[in-house]
Amino acid sequence: MPKLDLSQIPFKGGSTYPGKLAEAMAGRTSQALGDAGGLGQYGVNLVRLAPGAQSSLRHYHMQQDEFVMVTEGICTLIDDQGEHLMQVGDCAAFPAGEANGHHLVNKTEAPAVFLVVGTRTETETGYYSDLDMKVTVDVSGYIFTCKDGSPLSADQIGE
Amino acid sequence: MPKLDLSQIPFKGGSTYPGKLAEAMAGRTSQALGDAGGLGQYGVNLVRLAPGAQSSLRHYHMQQDEFVMVTEGICTLIDDQGEHLMQVGDCAAFPAGEANGHHLVNKTEAPAVFLVVGTRTETETGYYSDLDMKVTVDVSGYIFTCKDGSPLSADQIGE
Repeated sequence: MPKLDLSQIPFKGGSTYPGKLAEAMAGRTSQALGDAGGLGQYGVNLVRLAPGAQSSLRHYHMQQDEFVMVTEGICTLIDDQGEHLMQVGDCAAFPAGEANGHHLVNKTEAPAVFLVVGTRTETETGYYSDLDMKVTVDVSGYIFTCKDGSPLSADQIGE
Repeated sequence: MPKLDLSQIPFKGGSTYPGKLAEAMAGRTSQALGDAGGLGQYGVNLVRLAPGAQSSLRHYHMQQDEFVMVTEGICTLIDDQGEHLMQVGDCAAFPAGEANGHHLVNKTEAPAVFLVVGTRTETETGYYSDLDMKVTVDVSGYIFTCKDGSPLSADQIGE
C-alpha cells in the first residue's frame, strides 16, 4: 500500500563514521521512508535530531543531489556562508558537485525533524569540510580516508 | 544559497493534458523547489490544491519513483485500493513500474499542500487508470495517446 504507516518504520541510530567520529552522531535517528515504500532511485529519510544533535559531519556530495525540508522544530543549517535558521516548511537544496559543505544542527531545547532526499548512485564521493576526510562509496560499502586517499590517522579517529 | 526563499519561487498553474482534459487541473498550482535549488536528478515540487482540485489524473509511472508528503491541510489519496486520508506529515511512495494508478484530491473546504519528489529520466511512460490514455515523454516533450498508441479521439479530448 503506497500510504506509509510511519509508526511501523523503525528508527535507526548509529553512524558509519570511523572510530570516535561516530560519537558526533549521538542524538540522531532516522526512518527510511523511501526504503519502506519500495523506492530504489533515491533515498527519503525522516531524520530526528535531539537537542544538540546534528544531521552529519559537514560535507558535500559529488554525485548525488540532496534536498531537505524541516517538518518539526527548528534546525540551523550551517554551510560555507554561515548559519541559516530553518523552521517548519523551510527547504534547502544541495546540487551534486557543489563544494559547499553543509549540515543541520539542532541548537534548540526541543526535538527537530527534517525530511531528506538523496539520489541513489552506484558510486559516490563526499568531502568533509571541517576535517581532512573524504568518503568513497561503492558496492563494498563506505571507505573513509584523508582527502588525498591516505589512511586516517589514529589521532584523527582515536584508535 | 542552498536555503530556498519560497516567497520568490513562482506558482505555476495549467496543465500539459490535451484539450478538455486540461480543465481537470483547475485549482492546482505548484512551485518547482528542486529546479529553484539547482537540482537536476529529481524534481521536487510543492503543490497547492484549492478545495476540489486534484494533483493529476490518476496515473502511474513506469520509470520514475514518486514520493509525496502532505504539508498542509488534508488530501485524499485515491488508488486502486480506494481512498486513504492523508494528513500533515503523512507520506506515500509509488515505486516505478508498480501499476497502481494514484492521485491526491482535496475534498475539503480549505487549501491543501503536498511535497512531491519524482526522478528525472530521459524517457518515461505513464498510464492513466480511469481513461484510455498513456503519455510518453522524451526530449521532444509529452505525447498523449490511447494505450495502444493510436491518437486520442476528438470525443476523448473534446476537440
